[in-house]
Amino acid sequence: MDEPSPAAAPGRALLTAELLAIGTELTVGETTDTNSGELARSLVAHGVVVARVSNLPDHQPTVVEAMRVALARADLVVCTGGLGPTPDDLTREALAEVCGEDLQTDPRALARLREMWARRSQPFPESNVKQAWTIASATSLPNPHGTAPGWWVDRPGGRVIVLLPGPPREMGPMWRDHVLPKLVGRGVGGDADVRTLRLTGIGESQVVEELGEPLLRRANPVVATYARHEAVDVRISARPEDGRSAAELGAEAEAAVLSILGDHVWARGDTTWADALGEALAARGWTLATTERGSGGALVALLRGMPGLRRAETVEPDAEAAPSGSSEGELELREAERMRTESRADVGLAIRIEASGRDTHAHVGLVAPTGRHAERRTAFQGGRQGADRAAIAGAAVLHAFLRR
Amino acid sequence: MDEPSPAAAPGRALLTAELLAIGTELTVGETTDTNSGELARSLVAHGVVVARVSNLPDHQPTVVEAMRVALARADLVVCTGGLGPTPDDLTREALAEVCGEDLQTDPRALARLREMWARRSQPFPESNVKQAWTIASATSLPNPHGTAPGWWVDRPGGRVIVLLPGPPREMGPMWRDHVLPKLVGRGVGGDADVRTLRLTGIGESQVVEELGEPLLRRANPVVATYARHEAVDVRISARPEDGRSAAELGAEAEAAVLSILGDHVWARGDTTWADALGEALAARGWTLATTERGSGGALVALLRGMPGLRRAETVEPDAEAAPSGSSEGELELREAERMRTESRADVGLAIRIEASGRDTHAHVGLVAPTGRHAERRTAFQGGRQGADRAAIAGAAVLHAFLRR
Repeated sequence: MDEPSPAAAPGRALLTAELLAIGTELTVGETTDTNSGELARSLVAHGVVVARVSNLPDHQPTVVEAMRVALARADLVVCTGGLGPTPDDLTREALAEVCGEDLQTDPRALARLREMWARRSQPFPESNVKQAWTIASATSLPNPHGTAPGWWVDRPGGRVIVLLPGPPREMGPMWRDHVLPKLVGRGVGGDADVRTLRLTGIGESQVVEELGEPLLRRANPVVATYARHEAVDVRISARPEDGRSAAELGAEAEAAVLSILGDHVWARGDTTWADALGEALAARGWTLATTERGSGGALVALLRGMPGLRRAETVEPDAEAAPSGSSEGELELREAERMRTESRADVGLAIRIEASGRDTHAHVGLVAPTGRHAERRTAFQGGRQGADRAAIAGAAVLHAFLRR
Repeated sequence: MDEPSPAAAPGRALLTAELLAIGTELTVGETTDTNSGELARSLVAHGVVVARVSNLPDHQPTVVEAMRVALARADLVVCTGGLGPTPDDLTREALAEVCGEDLQTDPRALARLREMWARRSQPFPESNVKQAWTIASATSLPNPHGTAPGWWVDRPGGRVIVLLPGPPREMGPMWRDHVLPKLVGRGVGGDADVRTLRLTGIGESQVVEELGEPLLRRANPVVATYARHEAVDVRISARPEDGRSAAELGAEAEAAVLSILGDHVWARGDTTWADALGEALAARGWTLATTERGSGGALVALLRGMPGLRRAETVEPDAEAAPSGSSEGELELREAERMRTESRADVGLAIRIEASGRDTHAHVGLVAPTGRHAERRTAFQGGRQGADRAAIAGAAVLHAFLRR
């Protein structure tokens, strides 16, 4: 009998994946599934298409059916959650049922569990025995950050299903240290190139209009737009085609987008305003102090944790009479100068927010060693959203000034 | 033909729901689906069982298949996302295909869109016409916060499918103001009682220990604990049993929890620290000014939008030499007094954050018309998490003072 093991000769490229996040806390909305996002980003970066993400309750028939359907559609199925010690946790039971195999206790895993409790000088709760359960076709995945080992199971036809623990601090390291290397060793995914351009001062529909249907409808590279809190993002994802690499096609599409909308691009990837301004200030060796009026702290929230921000002040509009200025921008320039002086920062930035019907005006003033600048921008929203947009306008004005 | 309309005679109680969140940004992990959690909490509170949550890519055949399967299993299907103006946005097309109906342009919706662009003095992008598309069986749901109206569609057998926009600030109000009242009017869900107690100054494992297994293992009411950013939440969810109402059983379990952990409860439901402090200040007719040092704006972020917050100051520890105080708390009391005087607020709150190995100390001082209070608290985390926890400690100290 010289039959090759399924792992040694998988005979299937792992090109598509489905993710199952298991736990009633997810379907009642008490907990947000962040694991699937982390797994999806990792898989996409390795050229795997994530076809679907499902959140399922701790209900064995539902989980069994979802595993079967996912295994019929995708090359790789990654499950998170339901590996705890409580009666609710039944992901192991569900996969044993799918595989038609009996659950058995792994003596080494059990010994490790008993030792963990002994180390804490606590009696071992018998309910935890189930965390040492396994099936014949499962390979155990070590969990240095918790009690439940993961499972790697090779299925007929070269498909793979993996069980990972739900707590992100256990899931993440197990994925990175044990699952991903094994997948890469087997040759997961294809060549892929993903790049994101972050735009400001333009709405999503205007971005769509400028880029035009031919670019946005192309199957490869895919060019997609996303209206986010901080930016409109243009995301380019490429696969190899006609002998050209993913990176080559990605770079070409990026150049096309930049030639149309380059003036609006303020960052790439997942750069935040705090990152972008922090870097732009550091490049000049400058520090910043800010004052905002009427925005409820929108600017300091946007810049939270930014290196080089020495002092931030938030004033409510009804708190103190605004100092009057004789011309547009004069008031903000004076405020910016005051903050800059008071806090001995290199740059002072002042924004004042003013509701205007359903819209919000942002009056921005900034004073730097190389000059002064005042500008008024309008956000087409009111309330808290309007304040957020106005703060972003203030950050964008400063960023443009620093890049000059 | 006197056939009753499906809406008038639904003949089906809406007891189970499935949620479909549509958008490739979700399945590539670029965006986290927060809409489904919000919808699930709302549905569960109305006695509806959420059987499954799926995140799907912008791929029409996948969405059509998922809608069909969900409509076969659940009474109610709620979709979010894919109502934007781009070629990617094809949730409308998918539901039209499921219903076997043609897409047509709703002239009133189109007129509203054109007017929105006219108000901004911008040319109307023809790509946006699709946001005015509808089908014969759809009822339009107004969107005061964006351009895409939602759809409510009655399906055979009394089932319902709803399409909502993806941006949470558009989705939330449409759900609360237009979908939920319509569902309640139709008699959604069963009798259910959900109540959440928010705790501070105690860790989750201590909460579990104090409540004990008998309370936490009961099938009805279910008592579950969740460690969150702002609090440890104890969630009680009850169904009717043995002739007793859900509310009666929920109240009984709440009383049991309060008798054990009542001292730690600072709020209920989804109350935030900004809500709780805003109310406690309003009850005394007081205003607040804050100053924080070393926290990167954690306190102003926590209190964002709080009524009664007149002024908030954030100072970086290296920015200015901290004024020296001769005894513990004296420095913070002096800072609190300074802010209170400078901003003419009733209460001054000062926090200073100090790293201590892997932990973070929060030095809190507060000055109010009725007295002064200083306290040091320790958060068992460092970095940004430590700063967040320290800000919460500051809020908790003020809240306890105001409730005295």
